[in-house]
Amino acid sequence: MIDSAMETNLCVIAGGGILPRKIADNFDSSGNRIFFLAFRNVTDPEVVAGRHHEWLELGEVQKAIDAMHRNNVDKVVMAGPIQRPALSSLALDTRALKMLAKGGLKIFGDDGLLSLVANEIEEEGIKVIGIEQILSEVLTKEGLLAGPAPTKIFWDDIKRGLHVLNRLGPCDVGQSIAVQEGVVLAIEAIEGTDQMIERAGSLQRNVSGPILIKMSKANQDKRVDLPTAGPETVNNAIRAGFQGLALEANNSLLLDKDRVIKIAEKNSFFVIGVDQSKILQ
Amino acid sequence: MIDSAMETNLCVIAGGGILPRKIADNFDSSGNRIFFLAFRNVTDPEVVAGRHHEWLELGEVQKAIDAMHRNNVDKVVMAGPIQRPALSSLALDTRALKMLAKGGLKIFGDDGLLSLVANEIEEEGIKVIGIEQILSEVLTKEGLLAGPAPTKIFWDDIKRGLHVLNRLGPCDVGQSIAVQEGVVLAIEAIEGTDQMIERAGSLQRNVSGPILIKMSKANQDKRVDLPTAGPETVNNAIRAGFQGLALEANNSLLLDKDRVIKIAEKNSFFVIGVDQSKILQ
Repeated sequence: MIDSAMETNLCVIAGGGILPRKIADNFDSSGNRIFFLAFRNVTDPEVVAGRHHEWLELGEVQKAIDAMHRNNVDKVVMAGPIQRPALSSLALDTRALKMLAKGGLKIFGDDGLLSLVANEIEEEGIKVIGIEQILSEVLTKEGLLAGPAPTKIFWDDIKRGLHVLNRLGPCDVGQSIAVQEGVVLAIEAIEGTDQMIERAGSLQRNVSGPILIKMSKANQDKRVDLPTAGPETVNNAIRAGFQGLALEANNSLLLDKDRVIKIAEKNSFFVIGVDQSKILQ
Repeated sequence: MIDSAMETNLCVIAGGGILPRKIADNFDSSGNRIFFLAFRNVTDPEVVAGRHHEWLELGEVQKAIDAMHRNNVDKVVMAGPIQRPALSSLALDTRALKMLAKGGLKIFGDDGLLSLVANEIEEEGIKVIGIEQILSEVLTKEGLLAGPAPTKIFWDDIKRGLHVLNRLGPCDVGQSIAVQEGVVLAIEAIEGTDQMIERAGSLQRNVSGPILIKMSKANQDKRVDLPTAGPETVNNAIRAGFQGLALEANNSLLLDKDRVIKIAEKNSFFVIGVDQSKILQ
């Protein structure tokens, strides 16, 4: 590796899934250096294999910051989901405990903790950036992205879903929901979208739908991982009998868009980017 | 059966579970007459067996009202859960369609539809009463009802749960939640409390808890079935590793309280009635 003052040294805080790798692939081509912080039982070892990385336990905040300084990191990005663990199950270091003490009620939420971590890093003079600043093409665009345009009944379900998620948002819990003809089949909490889709599939009725709706939380910290969907999400939804996916435009990530569109088109499944401010009055 | 102008003729709109039978047992002893409306695929046939009853399909509103008049019903009570079905899956009669047209957005909710049905019945000069008017002893009382007093960590989880349910209430979806050290493990939608408990059990972490919190929805129509827990709920929760149950005092039903207390005490599981207005500021 070449050390140069002109380079950006990016640290990727690697949650689950392949997104951290995608960032690395993209960033590498720009000639800058990348460094992974990987977390045991969270990060997929294959994603960081062969890359400059360090393994940590969740809760080792000081160790994470030390590693960033050691690698002259000047920017940090969080990529991929990290499920908010029970605090007493963690080996929290002193720095983490101090951080939590500052956090107050925020530590209750799924994203609140990550948001605190981001603040802690920025206090070290290191900038925490959103994924969309590296991979702008993954931000969900507004409008119909694939498949047939939603019918009136599907639009009503999208509205119903957005309404419920909008109420739930400030609680910093769940970011997706399955709706079928106005009936909320399932609300996501800690189980993750894929399990929620499967459950909703088994609870659906013999009518059109259901629809999957995924949006960011009220005042979501954009430095923290945004709601994400990709080919797996769409495949799972189609397998479970869903007929469409609504993602929040400009506030969620759509991975592998070309593959998503291909799968969706083949299955007459719609994918749409919606602006909640235009839909919820 | 004796016909007398002095008697009350009560119609029980029988949802799932044994609650409709309990009402009948209690009401019979008062010497009044009871008449069941049972619904295919909803009401347990054993609950109405040997009782004066009629079977209907969900959506047959006119038929239900005609049956009430034929049986000189002067009071109606709704007992036991009726899952809100997809409207297009129902054989709706003309009366039901007119009712829905009046209902507007209310028809989206789980209870909204039942509330509309209650209004429709009252327009016929028949009074719809809450279950607590017949079985006052099933209303959840405020304070610790069984088991050890909740510790600080459990109180925090109760608050977190109430806060989320309070946000969700106006959407008329779900009325229970599982929380463990601030982490919302599961939110109930259409699957019912028992399935939610099982799921939360499998998602829990290796720390104390989880806690089950169940409360009524904002502006809940008390004529419509209130949130309910009983020995089965507590047994399921204990089996799934839960350590306590918080019910909304005066706004939820606790069935078979003596058995609940026995089971809870034996398992060091707390059952508490909480007044959300005192807890949420």
